[in-house]
Amino acid sequence: MSELAQRSELPVPTIKYYLREGLLHHGEAVGATRAKYDESHVRRLRLIRALTEVAGMRLEDVRRVLDAIDDDSLTWHEAIGSAHTRLPPPISADETEAERPRVDALLARHDWELSEQSQHREALAGALTSLAALGHPPSDEQLDTYAEAATLIAERDLDALRETDRAEAVEHAVVSTLLLEPVLLILRRVAQENSSRRRAN
Amino acid sequence: MSELAQRSELPVPTIKYYLREGLLHHGEAVGATRAKYDESHVRRLRLIRALTEVAGMRLEDVRRVLDAIDDDSLTWHEAIGSAHTRLPPPISADETEAERPRVDALLARHDWELSEQSQHREALAGALTSLAALGHPPSDEQLDTYAEAATLIAERDLDALRETDRAEAVEHAVVSTLLLEPVLLILRRVAQENSSRRRAN
Repeated sequence: MSELAQRSELPVPTIKYYLREGLLHHGEAVGATRAKYDESHVRRLRLIRALTEVAGMRLEDVRRVLDAIDDDSLTWHEAIGSAHTRLPPPISADETEAERPRVDALLARHDWELSEQSQHREALAGALTSLAALGHPPSDEQLDTYAEAATLIAERDLDALRETDRAEAVEHAVVSTLLLEPVLLILRRVAQENSSRRRAN
Repeated sequence: MSELAQRSELPVPTIKYYLREGLLHHGEAVGATRAKYDESHVRRLRLIRALTEVAGMRLEDVRRVLDAIDDDSLTWHEAIGSAHTRLPPPISADETEAERPRVDALLARHDWELSEQSQHREALAGALTSLAALGHPPSDEQLDTYAEAATLIAERDLDALRETDRAEAVEHAVVSTLLLEPVLLILRRVAQENSSRRRAN
């Protein structure tokens, strides 16, 4: 147990809590008070840490991602898609009503479906509502370009996945999605600086 | 002055402070204690508000954006590029040394230049250093795809600019860049969910 704590960089009481809550599978009992843990435990704890600390997910949502990983009826890619579905959106939505038809039209144009649990439709409608309220509504053409750019990136990120172990693949996919966000935003500013400069010449 | 406060949604003392600091040009004096303000004052205040409140910029950086707008030797696009250069990066960089050569190579591959004032090279090196430390370094191919996606978006955003007034164009460009960030991040998650699902079938 103490080795597990060290390798996962999580305190022992936290690990015990995950065991009690069923987020972590029990180790093989060796005697009355000792259990043997293996690589699968370390990987699972790393994934839980990534989902809670990097993704800021609640344990309730983490559990549903873990359920997807453990559900043998899902394929490897389904488990990854499922984890993305459950990621909390980067902003919370207040007013969404006005822009929902636009969001639905956007999703339809790109042949995109969203699962029932996804909060992304609401979040997107909320973001578009804010933009309109501030007098800067994006055009459909702009949104389509953003969607195409997002698809380019998603396809490349999936191509980059090399792991064969499901838990590892989901961890890598989710952590990359989140940690590459600032990279994308910085590159967008750099691109804007450069595209502006080119048009200026 | 009170009408200006109302239209810009800024308190009078704040407007007086901007006047004293030279961020806002003085109105035309009409009598000893009154001055006449026009549309250019409202637009300038809206821009300052957008830069401080939406972009989270310090007044010192705001001043440099305003200087770019007021500098008649710069073209319209140069003023926009200059404003983007001065946007604070979405993350701050601690460790950057290790990844700087990779960032420089990335910039060179895309024929991108960064102005001296840009903090984006450092921020990018910092983000890549974090990713590597967490065991998820992106490949050059991934970074190139992100850069291509960023260029697609930047070009479309510039195409969408319709304003002819410089201050308005810079305001629209900068506010759109910032407010469309969550839209891009949400669309990326939606794309990932959908690309994963397609590969699963």
